[in-house]
Amino acid sequence: MKRITILGSTGSIGTQALEVVRDHPGVFKVAVLSALKNSLLLIQQAKEFKPAVVVICDESKYNEVKEALHGLNIKVLAGEAALSEVAAYPDSDVVLTALMGSVGLKPTIAAITAGKNIALANKETLVVAGELITQLAAQHHVKILPVDSEHSAIFQCLVGEEQNEIEKIYLTASGGPFLGKTKGFLSTVKKEQALKHPNWVMGAKITIDSASLMNKGLEVIEAKWLFNLEVDQVDVIVHPQSIIHSIVQFTDGSMKAQMGVPDMKLPIQYALNYPDRLKNNFKRFNFLDYPTFSFEKADMETFRNLNLAFASLKKGGNMPCILNAANEIVVAAFLEDKIGFLQMSDVIEQCMEEIGFIEKPQLNDFLETDKHSRILAGRLVTKSKV
Amino acid sequence: MKRITILGSTGSIGTQALEVVRDHPGVFKVAVLSALKNSLLLIQQAKEFKPAVVVICDESKYNEVKEALHGLNIKVLAGEAALSEVAAYPDSDVVLTALMGSVGLKPTIAAITAGKNIALANKETLVVAGELITQLAAQHHVKILPVDSEHSAIFQCLVGEEQNEIEKIYLTASGGPFLGKTKGFLSTVKKEQALKHPNWVMGAKITIDSASLMNKGLEVIEAKWLFNLEVDQVDVIVHPQSIIHSIVQFTDGSMKAQMGVPDMKLPIQYALNYPDRLKNNFKRFNFLDYPTFSFEKADMETFRNLNLAFASLKKGGNMPCILNAANEIVVAAFLEDKIGFLQMSDVIEQCMEEIGFIEKPQLNDFLETDKHSRILAGRLVTKSKV
Repeated sequence: MKRITILGSTGSIGTQALEVVRDHPGVFKVAVLSALKNSLLLIQQAKEFKPAVVVICDESKYNEVKEALHGLNIKVLAGEAALSEVAAYPDSDVVLTALMGSVGLKPTIAAITAGKNIALANKETLVVAGELITQLAAQHHVKILPVDSEHSAIFQCLVGEEQNEIEKIYLTASGGPFLGKTKGFLSTVKKEQALKHPNWVMGAKITIDSASLMNKGLEVIEAKWLFNLEVDQVDVIVHPQSIIHSIVQFTDGSMKAQMGVPDMKLPIQYALNYPDRLKNNFKRFNFLDYPTFSFEKADMETFRNLNLAFASLKKGGNMPCILNAANEIVVAAFLEDKIGFLQMSDVIEQCMEEIGFIEKPQLNDFLETDKHSRILAGRLVTKSKV
Repeated sequence: MKRITILGSTGSIGTQALEVVRDHPGVFKVAVLSALKNSLLLIQQAKEFKPAVVVICDESKYNEVKEALHGLNIKVLAGEAALSEVAAYPDSDVVLTALMGSVGLKPTIAAITAGKNIALANKETLVVAGELITQLAAQHHVKILPVDSEHSAIFQCLVGEEQNEIEKIYLTASGGPFLGKTKGFLSTVKKEQALKHPNWVMGAKITIDSASLMNKGLEVIEAKWLFNLEVDQVDVIVHPQSIIHSIVQFTDGSMKAQMGVPDMKLPIQYALNYPDRLKNNFKRFNFLDYPTFSFEKADMETFRNLNLAFASLKKGGNMPCILNAANEIVVAAFLEDKIGFLQMSDVIEQCMEEIGFIEKPQLNDFLETDKHSRILAGRLVTKSKV
């Protein structure tokens, strides 16, 4: 049995991971579960999956969880710092990092250092500190198994091709709910519109990122590190049907694509049980349901976030970290109606211009940069009333 | 250096294989070349690539070839029987079977028995005797590396997935020059129209087979044997752009596709140098040149050959052999304006009905069936004047 730790078990990825576990009795054993603040769901999950340890990050809910799980032989911890502790839990083989935002960085480092394979759903970890994380993973001989559908697609296309060089990759983008819209239109959109993703059901933060194309920008950065590529080997192509999840082009010109009905459970299951595929009853793709696939260039003029992400990656150092932290703040602000859709890019860009550039940052530099970028972005949000 | 034997070096696949060899100096060494009757080109190829042996099947041209290569230390053989002799040539690693029609069967058996990997461009070999050939290959631990673009696509998608089960495969079909046409239209078409394939440049026989969808039918049979599938695991989907070359669906629902600009040199190169890909300057695919991929059901009502091929595979035994032999005769007749486009299916169907069914044929049964089917098809062609 594969023993798994799920950091962020009550979120979209976490709950779908537990569906995968539920659907394959005897294949997985849940070792650890953690939740930010959804104590009720965490308790319910703990009762069903009987992990050895649970973590509730919100310390005010510790007693509630502790009491609810009394007598079940489940250790209960509280606070964000406990995440790094449980990430290294000895009786676990793979750690699914389904945390939201850059809070995933430290637990991921702890898990890698403890020799755990990482099922990476927290892309911010690689965005913020891709070089550091991938080097650490290489040192400790652990695999980073991507859970993002695009990166899982590339990863699946690369199995058995270890000796062959990648020429380039194409990350597909649905284009989100605002595909084809003008800046004039975007200046008026509200969170209700941005939260309606055409193809994928995801958490609120990533759904806003999808609408602004920042999600694709973060994925470009993630892909650079995961697959050891140069910036100009990563391209984005808009494919509104979201059937082709991404494409690798090898140096002989041959391209391999992974495709299927959009369903996050597939990449989750693949990462958790890699390299073996598990039978399931997920909806199968039928070409006759999708008689046309279309492709178009991403509009980086209108969706500036994607351009900013490429720029941050070209500049390197702590620049992607600045971008990511500022983005977390502006998305939260947009979700609270404190800032307009287009202003998100303005604030991010200003943070990238104003925060000190560090060419070769260490872990502490990342943490400091993250903090500074959040503070500055917060100030800029307050100034820029909608 | 990989030492290669090319059976059928003056045909479309053979000449493209030699382009691949020419473009990668130091990677390949040509051991053997053979041609049906194009002595001039064979002589030219022999002078350039300096094989140890050449075969000219047309014995009337033996002297011409022999004299032209005098003093070059190249052994010259003549006659079809010599193909089986050179297929086993000791100083060769891989045999590219680019012969046309079921004449490829015996040399392929000779090569496998001698432990040579097969780069299989002669699909008729597997169509006629798929079970026998694949069992023999397994016994002698040789690989059958498909050169057909569709099967190469599937093969490329399967590397690294050896432990994972295939749920089904989709062979893509361009639909050929007559996609969307009615039987009324087809009853009037001439060879000049059928020879204009929209996407691929190939020999005349396979181009007619593409127009009638028999090529796809033969590919279905080939795929069944190459990938050890049941008939209902093989599906055909029409994709007129011919960018996605074929698709595998695994038991977790994940699908992998291989794609690119249509160019037979890619699967040839891949098969000759498997598992390592070679850098090249083939035209790269650009999504913006193909903003739309479309898919539709194959029309087996109008293009009856595909239906007949599926039927022959379901029936098994010597039935695909009957189908293939009859098809070779009717295509030759169509190319000589002796028979109409739709009559090709009629003749094939009648052969399938009238020739004795053998459930578990041995090599000799295949050779006999092949002969009988050709004779009957020839008679039926003569009777059915256009």
